[in-house]
Amino acid sequence: MRAPLSDRNIGDLPVIAAEILERIRAKRPRVHCITNAVAQTFTANMLLAAGAVPSMTIAQKEVRAFAARADAILVNLGTFDVERQKASLAAVDVANRARIPWVLDPVFIERSPPRAAFAKKLLAKKPRALRLNAAEFGALSGGNTDDAALARFAKGRCVVVGLTGARDFVRDGERLAIIANGHPLMARVTAMGCVASALVGACLAVEPDAWKATVAALIAIGVAGEIAAARARGPGSFVPEILDAIYTLDRDTLIARAKVS
Amino acid sequence: MRAPLSDRNIGDLPVIAAEILERIRAKRPRVHCITNAVAQTFTANMLLAAGAVPSMTIAQKEVRAFAARADAILVNLGTFDVERQKASLAAVDVANRARIPWVLDPVFIERSPPRAAFAKKLLAKKPRALRLNAAEFGALSGGNTDDAALARFAKGRCVVVGLTGARDFVRDGERLAIIANGHPLMARVTAMGCVASALVGACLAVEPDAWKATVAALIAIGVAGEIAAARARGPGSFVPEILDAIYTLDRDTLIARAKVS
Amino acid sequence: MRAPLSDRNIGDLPVIAAEILERIRAKRPRVHCITNAVAQTFTANMLLAAGAVPSMTIAQKEVRAFAARADAILVNLGTFDVERQKASLAAVDVANRARIPWVLDPVFIERSPPRAAFAKKLLAKKPRALRLNAAEFGALSGGNTDDAALARFAKGRCVVVGLTGARDFVRDGERLAIIANGHPLMARVTAMGCVASALVGACLAVEPDAWKATVAALIAIGVAGEIAAARARGPGSFVPEILDAIYTLDRDTLIARAKVS
Repeated sequence: MRAPLSDRNIGDLPVIAAEILERIRAKRPRVHCITNAVAQTFTANMLLAAGAVPSMTIAQKEVRAFAARADAILVNLGTFDVERQKASLAAVDVANRARIPWVLDPVFIERSPPRAAFAKKLLAKKPRALRLNAAEFGALSGGNTDDAALARFAKGRCVVVGLTGARDFVRDGERLAIIANGHPLMARVTAMGCVASALVGACLAVEPDAWKATVAALIAIGVAGEIAAARARGPGSFVPEILDAIYTLDRDTLIARAKVS
Repeated sequence: MRAPLSDRNIGDLPVIAAEILERIRAKRPRVHCITNAVAQTFTANMLLAAGAVPSMTIAQKEVRAFAARADAILVNLGTFDVERQKASLAAVDVANRARIPWVLDPVFIERSPPRAAFAKKLLAKKPRALRLNAAEFGALSGGNTDDAALARFAKGRCVVVGLTGARDFVRDGERLAIIANGHPLMARVTAMGCVASALVGACLAVEPDAWKATVAALIAIGVAGEIAAARARGPGSFVPEILDAIYTLDRDTLIARAKVS
Repeated sequence: MRAPLSDRNIGDLPVIAAEILERIRAKRPRVHCITNAVAQTFTANMLLAAGAVPSMTIAQKEVRAFAARADAILVNLGTFDVERQKASLAAVDVANRARIPWVLDPVFIERSPPRAAFAKKLLAKKPRALRLNAAEFGALSGGNTDDAALARFAKGRCVVVGLTGARDFVRDGERLAIIANGHPLMARVTAMGCVASALVGACLAVEPDAWKATVAALIAIGVAGEIAAARARGPGSFVPEILDAIYTLDRDTLIARAKVS
């Protein structure tokens, strides 16, 4: 019989997160991002700040080549054009054949039935992680966003769910981590969730346990957000500050500030 | 007979502007933006900093759904591709049926006859406000940019014109406000006019008098620009500073610094 | 017999660079940029900070009109979509008919054979300058990236090559300048190379000797990068800092800090 996750395991998560971050800096994984127009620059800069190497092409002629050489792939539905839909399907096909981990970010699917339908189609292709907010999760789960719904969804779809908000819930079929880091200014900057998903991708590139990878990414972005908010005067200065905070985030700070239960 | 706008009315404008800004923060209106690729991120961040909630999709399949749920719509012609033209017409159609206010920003039409033709087509569909610079206005008015031309245009087209430059002129058929806020660094940052137009949209969402809404947006961005310029070392730091300045702008500062006549 | 480039000539380069920068500020040249989605905003802001006037349209209906009125053109292959390919060919055609200088930035061609093929097609149309990194140059030269290969390439193609990295090599058929300015943080910000290429464009607009123009752009961005790095806490604050640094860079600082041999 499999032992339930003990307190010790949860207590290890900040250390595991710090190690995953160190691995990104050492290995410099490539993360290919099919993401929305508003998020592209911030996403590329966040990946570079964390130590990863971004690429962003969505061109039909070359997306397969870029995907094939990536260590992880992000599919973000925030710009829902035909070219990005084709690029997403192509990249996911390459990822699944080559066993490259990929993360899905179904932006705003609660406002757009065609996006929700496409998100479901992609979910059936088994991303390793799904990063989204409660409204978006509700559009996939039929409305329920409590832990039982999360657990059922994660187990049934064999996917790690990273549900972000004031607190972040990271669920696979058996494990739950609740992360209480972060700051309200993060909701005043466009594409913050998209950037968190990209960081999940970078962590998946260096950590085979998708649950640990997702926890690590959300702890890191949450702690960096707190550090940035303490230095920023508002959402404008928050953007450069959070990039600097991820770049300079050291093991001891991450472990000391992580609030995970 | 309608009384002419008295000094007292003009004197009220800073207070009205402050109230409109407060209403944006309280109501958090949705502003759907069809805007150019260069401006998208800055525009979304400015709306968030002001308290509004941006959405930016231009995809044919979903732009109507986003427009229908918006409290105001921005149509900016800065990226003149076929997809954005279709999205603009669809969003305007939804807006006019549902009486959602919309603002037109005819970027660079003086340099591109096809853009100018499209701007005229959209103008015939009666935006509530038109935000542009003198060169762009000249392309619509046949060259004249003096107050008589502004008044004639505003009256004939039933549109509020917000003509921005070293001084901003806000005109409807009967009223004129001249705003002397702002700073030369604003011309050294890309998409500053586009961002001002988005803020006009946010104000239209909470203020039915389009003239007051346009005045409020241009006072706010002008005052924020002055505050930002005082803190910035150049156009790079000016961008986060103006976002912080809009976010932190309080009633007393806005009223004290507004220069409107 | 033509005299070899003397020490005195190389010693003049910082002064020449300062003069070229001053000419940009005085003449405010228009630079039309066909560049990638990730780089557009940063590129426009860098050109504005330097004193140039950017335009970025890629729309088929108007790219010729914008190109015809530009003082220099940038063709960057970082977003390799069909619309940008058509726009690039149209802009280059206009440029070559009107003798407008243009610079090519063949981003990531080492990772994408279709991009490399398109880059070669554009190279045959004789850009005045080619700005790229060693991996990208290797994809054009068949692998060699030493000075002999650079010289042969520059001479054979009648193009100035600006090969950037820890040190920058600027080559035409006869002259070589090596620039040792810059900072490692520049590699942690997306689109830094793209922005350098845009600055090459601005310099080409005011300096007919493409070798001097390319040297000037790379000295300026390198010195600005050093100044920015000294003020920044990481790659996030580095972006506004380098824009401020270009904006405020004065003749004496540029000359004192330039490291060119």
